[in-house]
Amino acid sequence: MTEALKAPARGFERAEFEQRTAKLQQRMAQQDLDVLFLTTEPEFRYFSGFKSQFWESPTRPWFLVVPAQGLPVAVVPEIGVAGFEQTWIEDVRSWPSPRPEDDGISLLAEALTEFSRDHRRVGAMLGPETHLRMPAANFAQLEQMLGSRELVDISTLIRDLRSVKSAAEIEKIRFACEVTAAGFDYLLEHLRAGMTERQACKAMHLEMLRLGADACPYLISASGQGGYDNIIMGPTDRTLGDGDLLIIDTGANFDGYFSDFDRNYGFGRVDDEAKRAYEAVYQSTEAGLQAATPGRTTGDVWQAMWSVLEQAGALGNDVGRMGHGLGMQLTEWPSHVPGGDVLLQPGMVLTLEPGMSFAPGRMMVHEENILVTEDGCEMLHKRAWETLPIIG
Amino acid sequence: MTEALKAPARGFERAEFEQRTAKLQQRMAQQDLDVLFLTTEPEFRYFSGFKSQFWESPTRPWFLVVPAQGLPVAVVPEIGVAGFEQTWIEDVRSWPSPRPEDDGISLLAEALTEFSRDHRRVGAMLGPETHLRMPAANFAQLEQMLGSRELVDISTLIRDLRSVKSAAEIEKIRFACEVTAAGFDYLLEHLRAGMTERQACKAMHLEMLRLGADACPYLISASGQGGYDNIIMGPTDRTLGDGDLLIIDTGANFDGYFSDFDRNYGFGRVDDEAKRAYEAVYQSTEAGLQAATPGRTTGDVWQAMWSVLEQAGALGNDVGRMGHGLGMQLTEWPSHVPGGDVLLQPGMVLTLEPGMSFAPGRMMVHEENILVTEDGCEMLHKRAWETLPIIG
Repeated sequence: MTEALKAPARGFERAEFEQRTAKLQQRMAQQDLDVLFLTTEPEFRYFSGFKSQFWESPTRPWFLVVPAQGLPVAVVPEIGVAGFEQTWIEDVRSWPSPRPEDDGISLLAEALTEFSRDHRRVGAMLGPETHLRMPAANFAQLEQMLGSRELVDISTLIRDLRSVKSAAEIEKIRFACEVTAAGFDYLLEHLRAGMTERQACKAMHLEMLRLGADACPYLISASGQGGYDNIIMGPTDRTLGDGDLLIIDTGANFDGYFSDFDRNYGFGRVDDEAKRAYEAVYQSTEAGLQAATPGRTTGDVWQAMWSVLEQAGALGNDVGRMGHGLGMQLTEWPSHVPGGDVLLQPGMVLTLEPGMSFAPGRMMVHEENILVTEDGCEMLHKRAWETLPIIG
Repeated sequence: MTEALKAPARGFERAEFEQRTAKLQQRMAQQDLDVLFLTTEPEFRYFSGFKSQFWESPTRPWFLVVPAQGLPVAVVPEIGVAGFEQTWIEDVRSWPSPRPEDDGISLLAEALTEFSRDHRRVGAMLGPETHLRMPAANFAQLEQMLGSRELVDISTLIRDLRSVKSAAEIEKIRFACEVTAAGFDYLLEHLRAGMTERQACKAMHLEMLRLGADACPYLISASGQGGYDNIIMGPTDRTLGDGDLLIIDTGANFDGYFSDFDRNYGFGRVDDEAKRAYEAVYQSTEAGLQAATPGRTTGDVWQAMWSVLEQAGALGNDVGRMGHGLGMQLTEWPSHVPGGDVLLQPGMVLTLEPGMSFAPGRMMVHEENILVTEDGCEMLHKRAWETLPIIG
């Protein structure tokens, strides 16, 4: 039986939530926001410390209200109240949910009204890469109930704060990454021709749990003769054999923080084109590691990686970007895109995910997880193998 | 090493998607709907057959457009296009996402406009227990782009269809339930005083994966001397010992379908009050099993279960309901609530989840998963033990 790796402490000190909220309230003051509310799990957890798997149940809405001063206020279904004893939240308002005729909306409106007497400006997550986890009809009702108060998009504000990680957050991500890297090493030893994609993924899934991951909400694979044509489906029951290229991409989770990277494996006589593509994408990651430095932009990182791929004869890239933020979610803001203007800052945790179509219907994608430091970046786990590993 | 249980076939026949869509389009015709769109994973998968773990990434919106006639149309990020070869969808429209300035909205508006020339009525999920998985600002834009067309809530329509399961769906749920029941039996053999809640949950997690679950997105536990005070937090690092009551509640997943039930375990000298509470809640479930018959309502099922708990001296129930629908989601419509007027129908898969506070801060909750049949209901797995099992 595998021994678990040594895990960092769970949870956060109270000071961490105080700091997060203080930073948020500073930004709220700059924008004359009286209050804001949050409906999605990562944001709710980030400011409250409330961590529950119950978000898997889509039935009930949950609201966190953050006033311009003071502690956040939870407006939540009765079933959740006891859980707040484990948090720094003191003001917990609840209703017996589910109650379709008023599932917390009047209670939320009341709290927002109470806290928005100054500027009459209420923040909500309305912008790109967000959604409101509440019925759209209830949101329309809420707008009515808030009357002449102005709803202001806070998605930029929230993502700015969340994208720079604290030391405690980084340790959780680093651990998830170490478990994942060890899982890929395990697979290198245990993969055999004749296994199916699904068997390979199950073996890795079990190993990551034994090593200390809490869960592995993302674990996909794709394979084919000399290449694969996607990186978001699978695993399938396809049997792996001579000439195949296999990718596995996974996000393991520890204490609410993700890893997100992939590895490629070849089986038997893999053609030279695939091997060359592997080496080109490996070099592209090297260029990304050089470029990922405070003061440079997500566009610079993209350009550094793409130049190598272009040189290697890339036919294109259907992924839409070559890496992204990482933390409480498998993928977070920002993205490495052409022209991307987000400045890298120390404390950002990012993926580098160069990829290309190197022949029709055949892709090669690598991914690594990095931390931006004061003067560059560091890998959060063991780097991929320099050349395509061959099984059997 | 545990042998996996025999799993049913994965995926669905094309005929299943044709039938789902035909039923949807019949209902659309009754409501003069020209077209509707869906943004959330279960609904997208239900009508398209597109199944990917990539929904774990919150960055990009995905849209499924269902016109009054003909096949659904996918409006999706480029990264997803290759995956539709595995589905019955033929018309796949894509854009290079993420693209914050227009993340699929103009493409979605175009498709909706194209299909809504007759009644100018467009369906969307706006009602209770739903949310739109797209930026709220983009939804507002879409409303503008649709001009004088009317947006109509389709949440009732969709939940009516989804709540009655097909034979193939039932087999998937039944398998997830059998794996879960076997996991609880495994735990009965392997639980020991001195283990922590987290260790107990990890052991069960590994076992369910070995038995054939694809994943276990929900696995919580709570424990305490003679009782627990919540059923949605944990597992914690609390060590289990003499006098403790432990609950584990879990949702295992097979091929996109969930189980959702719990088991209670006692350790050593558990007090009589807890044992009596266990027996009362067991009898409450019995009453629920008798009541869950076609033609009776969710309110009848609630009343049958609550009467037994009231008789046993229940102090209250903070869960808000005593069971719910089950399938592609851990919790689905409908709910067993006081006065609930949803008529049970053959093919509905439901949980019975009676629970009560039997002393201040001490709850007892049971849960079982059932299928409503032509003349009653059947358990989808082995029933809970008649009396509280005692460890050590």
